[in-house]
Amino acid sequence: MKIVESVPNFSEGRREEVVKEIISQAEGVKGVWILDWSMDIDHNRSVVTLVGSPEPLLDVLFKMTKKAAELIDLRNHRGEHPRMGATDVIPLVPVMGTNMPECVDLSKKLAKRIGEELKIPVYLYEKSATNPHRENLSEIRKGEFEGFFEKIKDPSWKPDFGPENVHPTAGVVAVGAREYLIAFNVNLGTDKIEIAEKIAKAVRYISGGYRYVKAIAVDLKEKGIVQVSMNMTNYRKSPLYRVLETIRREAARYGVPVVGTEIIGMVPMQALIDTAQFYLQLDDFSPSRVIEGCVLEILAKEGAKLSE
Amino acid sequence: MKIVESVPNFSEGRREEVVKEIISQAEGVKGVWILDWSMDIDHNRSVVTLVGSPEPLLDVLFKMTKKAAELIDLRNHRGEHPRMGATDVIPLVPVMGTNMPECVDLSKKLAKRIGEELKIPVYLYEKSATNPHRENLSEIRKGEFEGFFEKIKDPSWKPDFGPENVHPTAGVVAVGAREYLIAFNVNLGTDKIEIAEKIAKAVRYISGGYRYVKAIAVDLKEKGIVQVSMNMTNYRKSPLYRVLETIRREAARYGVPVVGTEIIGMVPMQALIDTAQFYLQLDDFSPSRVIEGCVLEILAKEGAKLSE
Repeated sequence: MKIVESVPNFSEGRREEVVKEIISQAEGVKGVWILDWSMDIDHNRSVVTLVGSPEPLLDVLFKMTKKAAELIDLRNHRGEHPRMGATDVIPLVPVMGTNMPECVDLSKKLAKRIGEELKIPVYLYEKSATNPHRENLSEIRKGEFEGFFEKIKDPSWKPDFGPENVHPTAGVVAVGAREYLIAFNVNLGTDKIEIAEKIAKAVRYISGGYRYVKAIAVDLKEKGIVQVSMNMTNYRKSPLYRVLETIRREAARYGVPVVGTEIIGMVPMQALIDTAQFYLQLDDFSPSRVIEGCVLEILAKEGAKLSE
Repeated sequence: MKIVESVPNFSEGRREEVVKEIISQAEGVKGVWILDWSMDIDHNRSVVTLVGSPEPLLDVLFKMTKKAAELIDLRNHRGEHPRMGATDVIPLVPVMGTNMPECVDLSKKLAKRIGEELKIPVYLYEKSATNPHRENLSEIRKGEFEGFFEKIKDPSWKPDFGPENVHPTAGVVAVGAREYLIAFNVNLGTDKIEIAEKIAKAVRYISGGYRYVKAIAVDLKEKGIVQVSMNMTNYRKSPLYRVLETIRREAARYGVPVVGTEIIGMVPMQALIDTAQFYLQLDDFSPSRVIEGCVLEILAKEGAKLSE
């Protein structure tokens, strides 16, 4: 059984009936499951977490994109989060029984269908990018919806699929395969935001830190503490435990303890295995040693036809 | 989907063809999967790890017991490991979608069938025990096969199911539900066995240590180090990380480091979640946040009828 995850982002976080109608495209579909969804009023944006078998998942993502194009008019959209499309971005993430090249193929298939059938320009990003300057989503999104009417004329920003004109109300969309992203926050026992800022700077890639870490400092005023809030964009290569231990050491230099951490959303089992293996100093351990992983693998091989 | 694990022990570890014939009773059975098996020549004993849906798993365990009774004659059996039956012990362990009371019921159902159809006396042990003095397997097994012809006459050792006479060649068998057992070994950077002995004593229940820890010291002569070898009989209540950190602290008192650990066999996902949660200082985390766990739960609800 192949399991792919997708976390499509839609530019609507205020009209709940619209978000629910978009999500309804995934409901009751065999082989696709909605794990989570959330709306953000300030960002005016919603995020849906889906997992599923590749084919039905692609079909659901297409239908959600179609529905979002029908119900969202970006000409009237305001929100704190930058956006360029009614459906802003559709990542595809290998979870089980599949790999990155397969997800790249899937992303191209979906992109082609969105471009041809919905007449929305599509940019392939991350691992699916057709050019290095298109790997980074924020580079693609620069200028946002309003700026794209000019940007799309630049030959270096010709869409990968679909028309060469911005969709008048639905804008453009980014589709791509990427590694699993873990949102990992570390709380520090101090109210000094400058300490969190120094530590965020120490661990994040752009300022010399770990290759696959994005980090900012956040002031949790109501709790009287500060936080290093991170996106771990490749938890196998820049693992949670290593980054946490670096933060712990840097904080100790100011006499500040780590008082807790949080993972937002879902996490792949492998991230827990890696963590346990590091701290327990476990020699020689593999996912096939975890009972649930083993049962899933067996179900996969059997095509999950067991019924009871 | 309900998943139960069983690790039946058979008193044959030398004649591979016999062990394979016993195992063949589980091969190709829908809803039952062989995760692992091993033979030990010195112990003259083999151990099979199975998982499956309750009903087909019980049926397979019955057939394995029947086959072992046909092929093993305890009158000719010699080995280092104490034993009382051709099939010596059959534990049933709740893994997923089930719980201890259900596994106790299953154990009684299996025990009844073995007693009635195979005419082998059965003792319920651990959580299935009908009397506290029968909870501990080693108490039941005391006297072994040869001693049971007398022991069974003692009213306090009347079998729970089956005849009140020892099966002439297959002996008696213990069946019971128990918690998942994790075999966890901690290697110490010293060749002084007395340090491992002191530490094993510090953490094990019988000498004042953790309630659900059995521990012995082992000399790994070929590696030039010693080991604290443990059975963790309830990893939720006496967790791996707590016991490891205690060992680390006790070893430090002798200037000895923990140089590695190993988990023998399979481990439930929850044990890794608990470990990650402790060391990462994760607030507020549950198994439903692990993608694979979530997918298994969904498959379970759907009766695992997804096919792809």
